[in-house]
Formats: sequence, structure tokens, C-alpha cells
Amino acid sequence: MHAEGAGPVAIAIHGGAGVIDRAHMTPAREASCRAGLSAALDAGFSILARGGSSLDAVTAAVRLLEDDPQFNAGFGAVLSHDSSAELDAAIMDGSGPRAGSVAGIRHVKNPIELARLVMEQSPHVMLIGDGAEEFALERGVVLVPNSYFVTERRLRELHSAIAGADVESDPGPGMDVGVIVGQASGHDSGTVGAVALDRNGNVAAATSTGGMTNKRRGRVGDSPIIGAGTYANNETCAVSATGSGEYFIRSVVAHDIHALVQYKHLSLEAAVHEVIQLKLGRLGGEGGVIAVDCAGNIVMDFNSQGMFRGARDSRGRREVAIY
Amino acid sequence: MHAEGAGPVAIAIHGGAGVIDRAHMTPAREASCRAGLSAALDAGFSILARGGSSLDAVTAAVRLLEDDPQFNAGFGAVLSHDSSAELDAAIMDGSGPRAGSVAGIRHVKNPIELARLVMEQSPHVMLIGDGAEEFALERGVVLVPNSYFVTERRLRELHSAIAGADVESDPGPGMDVGVIVGQASGHDSGTVGAVALDRNGNVAAATSTGGMTNKRRGRVGDSPIIGAGTYANNETCAVSATGSGEYFIRSVVAHDIHALVQYKHLSLEAAVHEVIQLKLGRLGGEGGVIAVDCAGNIVMDFNSQGMFRGARDSRGRREVAIY
Repeated sequence: MHAEGAGPVAIAIHGGAGVIDRAHMTPAREASCRAGLSAALDAGFSILARGGSSLDAVTAAVRLLEDDPQFNAGFGAVLSHDSSAELDAAIMDGSGPRAGSVAGIRHVKNPIELARLVMEQSPHVMLIGDGAEEFALERGVVLVPNSYFVTERRLRELHSAIAGADVESDPGPGMDVGVIVGQASGHDSGTVGAVALDRNGNVAAATSTGGMTNKRRGRVGDSPIIGAGTYANNETCAVSATGSGEYFIRSVVAHDIHALVQYKHLSLEAAVHEVIQLKLGRLGGEGGVIAVDCAGNIVMDFNSQGMFRGARDSRGRREVAIY
Repeated sequence: MHAEGAGPVAIAIHGGAGVIDRAHMTPAREASCRAGLSAALDAGFSILARGGSSLDAVTAAVRLLEDDPQFNAGFGAVLSHDSSAELDAAIMDGSGPRAGSVAGIRHVKNPIELARLVMEQSPHVMLIGDGAEEFALERGVVLVPNSYFVTERRLRELHSAIAGADVESDPGPGMDVGVIVGQASGHDSGTVGAVALDRNGNVAAATSTGGMTNKRRGRVGDSPIIGAGTYANNETCAVSATGSGEYFIRSVVAHDIHALVQYKHLSLEAAVHEVIQLKLGRLGGEGGVIAVDCAGNIVMDFNSQGMFRGARDSRGRREVAIY
């Protein structure tokens, strides 16, 4: 913990990882993705630069990514087998730590804001389905029809996934439906997320997703699972993950990175490398994480073909990248 | 990993932790609780003793505890604010590792069996709500009406909780609704669980719960969260937790115990002590865990007034205890 307001600030964001088909990634589409990432990155950074909290920074960045139909969260989320959107999100404040999480959300425009309401205005950490939406209504959140989330592009992806892959077929050892769908449709089955460190030494993490194209109704991935897809602790770091969620849950990826830093005293970079490149890779899991530690070190690492990502800090670093 | 079939075997079970009102715990009721624990313990142990897997042992033990109305899982689960039962469960096989989890279940008699089906017959780890029950139907599981789970005793507890505590009131720092409800109703707001080591050196963990009396619809505690309430890894240990779930999620309790054993090389006993007595206690969380490591050491520890529990191993240990 730094003296009040004296520390460095840093933020990293991701817009999903996976199979990114370069044939479909025209210069125009790549520029548009980079613009979306830049907007979220700079919105979060500007909050940190003017002394705002890491919690506000990750909320703002993820909300913008949720509203951008290019990314798989909120508006433009990938669709379930029944052509509807089912959304999951989690947020964690490294101070406390405190956490909020929602899963199976169908009518809340910005799931990350509902996760934050759960953290701040309920005694609970996780609310799911209709009960979570009832809580949203009680807190004055205006619900939207599920069709709000559905875009033409995601419907096309769903139809091509249904034609090319059977969601219920056994994907065999070392492969999961997410990877198959990603390959079949030529699109990532991503997530969005942000991690940040503020001037007061507080870290925070936020993750939001529509899950996998053509997913079974009720399937929950790692994003809303505290410790798997989202984790923050002021003693070490904040982590947001994206990738084949089932592998990330079984490996408790985000908390494992924290534990390697805290108990084995690895650097954040070494801890992320061990979990993503070595352990997850050995199991066959694909994806990546963004992470920031309490000194402001940013790590963005993935074992997939690409990860939409961006990083910016008070030392002058600013980058947006895909491959 | 021991040579095929050569290793020791061990099992531990719990039937919840929390405020156990000795005034309500008559000798007859205590004997009945002990008999229920003994039946589950011995059923699991007999599977291990005849060379069965730890996965089968924890499934059998938890299924019996789910069917016993004295414990808060399956038949006789505590009731939500709307007088219905909403059930969560998770199972993890330390070999792989593999995991399955369900939450918000309303019509499956034995949620632990559905969690195991998710692990063994779907590419997913976690399914929730209607989607999970659709999967159950597809796998030939016969659904039961929600009224199957509801007992007179749990209805009385719910009414007394509603009269004594407002589920939506802010419980203040260091307290959660689970604790307040536990205090108000004089009953534990528990969980059931089992951990086991089989002859082949494989560990497994299983946890099942009805959550908290008078809980908000859609609230999910730590039981079905891999890493929080349930975790198993053949490199270290298997853990099943019970207590104030929100604290256990934020602290990623089960994976933290694993990490202390793996990265700090603590004994299982020291790791459990650090997480339950020191870290969880500092945050205000109440409850306990049962754990078994790959050498057959059993640890049962709690910082609450009591924890219904039992342990048995191939060295001749057999105990059932409450306080």
C-alpha cells in the first residue's frame, strides 16, 4: 500500500482469446477492434489518472466493452443453442477483499454493473438467474428484452456453429466444445475483462461474458467464478481470464496465480507463465489472462493464437494488440 | 500415487457447521444426528475398504446425507425466502482433475448425482437452473416436485427466521445473513460433504447444500464453487467446506489450503489451521472444513461452535463428533 495517492497506476484490458481467423480479420475489422479496445483502455486509465479507484476503472472499461458488439459480453454477446443470450460477470475489489458475481443473466444491459451491485448492496457474493434479476429490479435496474443482446453477426455464427458442430457430442480428451466451436466458426469464444491498480495501491478485477457460441442453456464458465476467471487481492495482484472456461475452473487459474506470487514469491510474470503456458497447456486448456500487481507491473499472456488486449500505465506505456 | 491397490484409505464427512443450540440438542436428537453421520461414514468407508474409488465413496456418503432430513441438503434442505428449496452441489475427482457442479436446482432428488453426471457426461463443469434440469432429463434423471424437499421442521425454521430477521437488511461488517439466521433460528445453516482417499492414491471431494434458511432466490454459496467449497487434487488433498459461504468464496478456501500444501509445503493440518483459524477468522467468516491428503491424513477443523463430522481410516480410526 502506497502513501495516499502517491503510487503508480496501471490498467490492462482484454476482449477475449482464442482462434482468431486472420482471413476474416480484414484491415477494417482489425482497426475497429483496436478502436474499441482503445476506448475502453483510455476510459479506465483516465479514471485512474485523475485519482479514481481501480474498482471504478475496471467497471468503466468493462461496461464499454459490454456495449461494443464486437466483443462477447453484453450487447453482441455470443448466443446459446436456443438463440438467446445468457450472461455472466464478476467483479472483485482487492481491498477487503470484496466480490460480486452474477450468472445466467438474460435481461440486464450491463451485467458487470449488476455484479457490482451484488458486491456493494447485498450481503451475498453470487446471485444467479431469475433471483439475480429480481435483485436488479429491487435496486432500480431497468431490464431489457433478451433481443437487445442479439446481433445479426452472432445469429450467423450460431447457425454456422449448429451446422458444423453438435453441442452435445463428446469433444474427446483435451478438447472442449468452446475450442471446437471456435474452430468451426472461425471466431473466438471470448470474454471481456479489466484489471487495474489505483494510486492508493488497491487492485481490482472485472470479467464479463456471453460464454460460448451454441452453448447449452445454464452452462457457466470461469468468468463469474471467483478464483477461476476473476480474482483480486491487495496483497498480490488482480487477474481476469479468458479462454476455455472449463479448464480455467478446474485449474482455479486466477487464484493459482495469486498463490504462486504469495506463497512461492514468484514475480507476477513468472506466476502467469507457469499457470498459462505450463500448467494449463499441459491439460489442454487454451486462453490467457491479464494481470496487474501492486507495484503496477502488467502481464498479458496467452497460449492461444491471439488475445485482444491493451495496457496503459503512468510510466508512459500504452499498447493495444491482438496477436 | 501408491502401487495399484496398496495404499491406505481414509474418509471424512461433515453435516454442517455453525451455531448449534445445545438447548435444542436433546440426547435423542444428538443420537439421531450421530446415527445419520455414522451411516454415511460407514457406507463411504465400506466402498474404500473393498477397493472402490474415492469418487464412489464420497458420492455414496453425500447421497445418504442428502436423503437424511436432519441435514441441510436434498430432502430436508433449508428453505428460501419463498418457502421453496434451491439446491447446489459439486464433486471433484483429484485425478485429472475433473469436476462437476450444479446450482439453483429445484427438482433433482440427489444434486450430488447430477453434479457427477455433469462431470462425467457433459463437456462442462458447471450447469445452473433450468438448463441443468434439462440436462438431467436428457440423462434419464427422474425429476421430483419441489415439495419433495420441504419438511415441517424447515418450514418452522423459515417462519421463525422471517419473524426474527429481515433477509434484506444489511447485516453490517463482519456478519452475514447466514450467521444472523443461524443465531435467530438456533439452527446451523449448514451443508453436507465428504472427502476420501482410495487405495490407488486418488482423492475426491463432494459437497451438497440447501444454502441458508430464508435466503434470497438465486443466492449461491461456496458449495458448488470449485476452489471455494469443494476442491480435490491428487498432488495434495481433497477439501469440502461448510459455513458462511460468502466468506469462503472470497477467500477461495479449498484451493487456498491446496496451495499452502503445494507451494509452502505445509502439512495438511497446518494449512487448514492457517486458512480456517487465522485467515477466515480475521475476516469474520465462520465454519469449517474436512480434508484428506494423499497419505491418508484426515483434518477436520472449524472456528464455529460445532461441526457435525465423522472420520474413518484403514489404520483403525473411527470417530463421529459434533462439538
